[in-house]
Amino acid sequence: MTTTGSDDAHRVVYAEDLVLGTPYITGKYRLERDDVISFARAWDPQAFHVDEAVAATHGFGGLIASGLQTACIFQRLAVTGVYSNWAIIAGRAIREMSFPRPVRPGSTLKGSVTITDVVARDEQRSLVHKHGELWDQDGARVFSMRAEAYMRRRPLPLEGA
Amino acid sequence: MTTTGSDDAHRVVYAEDLVLGTPYITGKYRLERDDVISFARAWDPQAFHVDEAVAATHGFGGLIASGLQTACIFQRLAVTGVYSNWAIIAGRAIREMSFPRPVRPGSTLKGSVTITDVVARDEQRSLVHKHGELWDQDGARVFSMRAEAYMRRRPLPLEGA
Repeated sequence: MTTTGSDDAHRVVYAEDLVLGTPYITGKYRLERDDVISFARAWDPQAFHVDEAVAATHGFGGLIASGLQTACIFQRLAVTGVYSNWAIIAGRAIREMSFPRPVRPGSTLKGSVTITDVVARDEQRSLVHKHGELWDQDGARVFSMRAEAYMRRRPLPLEGA
Repeated sequence: MTTTGSDDAHRVVYAEDLVLGTPYITGKYRLERDDVISFARAWDPQAFHVDEAVAATHGFGGLIASGLQTACIFQRLAVTGVYSNWAIIAGRAIREMSFPRPVRPGSTLKGSVTITDVVARDEQRSLVHKHGELWDQDGARVFSMRAEAYMRRRPLPLEGA
């Protein structure tokens, strides 16, 4: 029966459906050299993100990705691989975004999202607290964040239904 | 004498040179509808960031920018308008990034960076604590963040120089 699987994949995940404490694992993203430079030219044009000659002497021994690009890669992996059927209303805040190791061109990143708390705010909405991480192909953690988002609660059954 | 001004503009700003508590003001950035959609398609493809029909019924009454794009606009404005001659080594962490109001296509954003603390870590480096904000064309605050970055300290004069 593939119907059930298909239904499950498209079933909306409401705040009440989230599993606390068990990481939801994302797919992978390979970061190319040109992506590092083009992202940084657009959004974070510091010399050590856009200029290989400067980067070579800057302390990291070569180009490193903007921290914001690392955060964007996390978000892309989470949206496409984890949140795709979640009833997200909007993000509220991002807290404690950290970059324990530099991300270099050629890295392949993979992540996880762990739900740490779900707090009902009213009949329609809950505030969801989550923790996200990214690792590189060597298993080194390169990114972590804590964030909060509003999600819809499961609609109440109609009276008498 | 324009020479002095020119020299000043290119003079490296070390950690010791930062002025605490007085906002450094950025230039402006106008966010177009196509930019909202193309950024979100690449990095945050949630329906309310990429699909105008979904966004119209989603609670904000139309497309809104990804929070990460708002953060990227802040960084671009800060790097090009404030940090251009600062001796930044690398960011360490981003804390308490918040999005008090949605950012819509057509908005013109402007920001500030305020240094809240500078702590020497060794002879070469200081950790700089900063607070950033963005406002829209109506003066509404749409973004705030606290972050920390390492900056170089002013080199010591050579012995006997």
